[in-house]
Amino acid sequence: MSISPENSNRIVNLLDPDEFRRQGHMTIDFLADYHTKNREVPSGLTHWQSPNFFAYFLSSFGIPGMLGEMLCTRFNVAGFNWFSSSAATELENLVMDYGVIKGNTCEAIICILATARDKILRRLGHDSITKLVIYGSDQTHCSFQKAAQIVGIDPQNFRAIKTTRSTSFDLSPDALRDAIYSDIEAGLIPLYLCAPVGTISITAVDLLTPLCKITDEFGMWVHLDAAYAGAFCICPEYGKFINGVEFADSFSFDDHKWLLTPPDCSCLWLKDPKYLKKEATDSKQVVDYNDWQLSLSRRLRAVKLWLVLRTHGEHNLRKHIRNHCDGRSEIASPRSFAMICFRIRPSAVFDDMTNGHALENGHGEAWKAEEVNRINARLLQAINASGQAFMTHAVVGGIYAIRLRVGGALVRETRIVMA
Amino acid sequence: MSISPENSNRIVNLLDPDEFRRQGHMTIDFLADYHTKNREVPSGLTHWQSPNFFAYFLSSFGIPGMLGEMLCTRFNVAGFNWFSSSAATELENLVMDYGVIKGNTCEAIICILATARDKILRRLGHDSITKLVIYGSDQTHCSFQKAAQIVGIDPQNFRAIKTTRSTSFDLSPDALRDAIYSDIEAGLIPLYLCAPVGTISITAVDLLTPLCKITDEFGMWVHLDAAYAGAFCICPEYGKFINGVEFADSFSFDDHKWLLTPPDCSCLWLKDPKYLKKEATDSKQVVDYNDWQLSLSRRLRAVKLWLVLRTHGEHNLRKHIRNHCDGRSEIASPRSFAMICFRIRPSAVFDDMTNGHALENGHGEAWKAEEVNRINARLLQAINASGQAFMTHAVVGGIYAIRLRVGGALVRETRIVMA
Repeated sequence: MSISPENSNRIVNLLDPDEFRRQGHMTIDFLADYHTKNREVPSGLTHWQSPNFFAYFLSSFGIPGMLGEMLCTRFNVAGFNWFSSSAATELENLVMDYGVIKGNTCEAIICILATARDKILRRLGHDSITKLVIYGSDQTHCSFQKAAQIVGIDPQNFRAIKTTRSTSFDLSPDALRDAIYSDIEAGLIPLYLCAPVGTISITAVDLLTPLCKITDEFGMWVHLDAAYAGAFCICPEYGKFINGVEFADSFSFDDHKWLLTPPDCSCLWLKDPKYLKKEATDSKQVVDYNDWQLSLSRRLRAVKLWLVLRTHGEHNLRKHIRNHCDGRSEIASPRSFAMICFRIRPSAVFDDMTNGHALENGHGEAWKAEEVNRINARLLQAINASGQAFMTHAVVGGIYAIRLRVGGALVRETRIVMA
Repeated sequence: MSISPENSNRIVNLLDPDEFRRQGHMTIDFLADYHTKNREVPSGLTHWQSPNFFAYFLSSFGIPGMLGEMLCTRFNVAGFNWFSSSAATELENLVMDYGVIKGNTCEAIICILATARDKILRRLGHDSITKLVIYGSDQTHCSFQKAAQIVGIDPQNFRAIKTTRSTSFDLSPDALRDAIYSDIEAGLIPLYLCAPVGTISITAVDLLTPLCKITDEFGMWVHLDAAYAGAFCICPEYGKFINGVEFADSFSFDDHKWLLTPPDCSCLWLKDPKYLKKEATDSKQVVDYNDWQLSLSRRLRAVKLWLVLRTHGEHNLRKHIRNHCDGRSEIASPRSFAMICFRIRPSAVFDDMTNGHALENGHGEAWKAEEVNRINARLLQAINASGQAFMTHAVVGGIYAIRLRVGGALVRETRIVMA
């Protein structure tokens, strides 16, 4: 694609309508063709939208998402407060029902952590920052620990509570309570629990209600992080997975993962948004969204989300979610959301080794477990080296599993079967 | 513009190439027309790209910026590390010459503040976080104070050192040294100086070299924040404004303000990027950009910036900057960058009042100064209420000035004259 040569006259009218139209149509044609060709293109670019891309998390969207992003870019409204663009604020109020659109979950978590921290420090004084402790499970996304570091929590005061296979890798309320008691005895202050719905590794679901009972007892903040899996909330039948959300202080999920919206578009709601506001704006009748986020300026993401919701509609969005959850549940665990973790079983490995190789005696179970992990790691390496598919892995409870993410906008049954 | 109705079959192929082409061309046509019509549209949306928009800071771009954003969206590469998309990382290495693209300056400053903080806390222990002090001038952007709060600096340890008209509102090295000594005597630890080039209110330029001599003496981190004005660095004749940049630890500016790139695109360079890396990745030969930023995932912003630089070229970008700086310098101060602060002069106010009204005796200079401010505030209100132009204001040294920002891609001489 040749867009336009260096041209010293062009600078006079940067957005000349005729030239914009000509080059814009060329770009649309190029991108329409990219859709059909990206499964053949072996270039250096990782094609996240390719039907052979099963790695990480899903990030797919359709035509409304793409066009919404174009409107957002071209209107170029930096609506940081109500005054600078009232329409931008009002549209976001409407689309989000008085939540806020963030760039991504990391940004939401940093913002919420800082808010929870300042709520407690206003009471205890700033010097108590060194005593604050935050809690998650060992299945909580690694970016949570990074967020804690960014807002100045002592890295030694970050608790990744161990989970086990026996409790499906859910955070145990008893283990949480034990950890909190132990910290209080040591003179520390429990601040915050990050409760993930659909964890990064195996999409385990925490049981929110019993956890919130404990945090409530100690006046802690609970954030419900449903980055990937939160989109299922639009289907009534999956509502049970967030039973207890009413006890949480805040809730976030990424539209740009599963709800057909291009990045960046992450949704955050607070039970009591007053904690985000500066005192000076408390008296105002309008929302100044710059108080709700880390940065000052913000893009008009609301127009993109509005177009996605309006165009696809509730019916089609639910159909999209159900299409990825149902029908494949015999492969995945009943609690997993469009995510399959698989491996070559130990029995398969050692049967094979007994037949083909001399199995060394004297090796214990630990060696066998490691050997199975090594073989699965080599399998993943071979899959990715083939250039035919891209997957990642997870280590859960010492078990190395290959992680296949379903749910791309382009993913069809045949592709899954091939993988 | 009617994009597409709710259609239960559409969900089957979200990016159907023919439908994408049809709706894509419609959207391009709509946006081409928006360019010519936005000066007539009086809708609720604030048209930041309108030639009558003189408020806040510039954020304009041309065709390459718009098309680059479309490529970024459609490719949808979340290149958080080298492995997830090596091409995305390599392109950013190339375009940024081993700097990093951030969403905006606020994000850059939070990241740098956390980095500087952890560098010192690794040595002194985390409990020293309560003693860290950061410095700026009273002209430093308000988001700097917010960033300090986010990373856990005690709000009482934020120094906005007073500047005066006599030093053109520059931060005085003597005043900085006095503030540092006073904090050290109180048992505090000087951490960080934010030195703005082109401050938000009046685009004053700090004299970097003498300031860096002082910070060096105390082992402090200096960040050079040139959010708006940094783009002028591409013109050799403006290089003098960042004399001393070699003594700073980090430098950032926004491409999306003055360099024809749509938001979000902010550039950050570090003298020693090792402070951003996790220890685990130190040994790697590649860059993992997720270690260089707050969030995990990131958009392929490099492709947008690459297209802007390639298509406009050095010559045209310099011409664009010079077009906004030269020729109008008789209005603005020699140190201001495409920014005019003006007001109705006190003499004009009181001459007029003497002629038209009975001037009350007994009013002192303070009352007169306030009266001039009130009249200028009413003038700004009237300008904005007219719907013909949108400007903002600044209060500097007790003087209320109307702030007119030049430099939109669509701004022509006639518009400035009208304003």
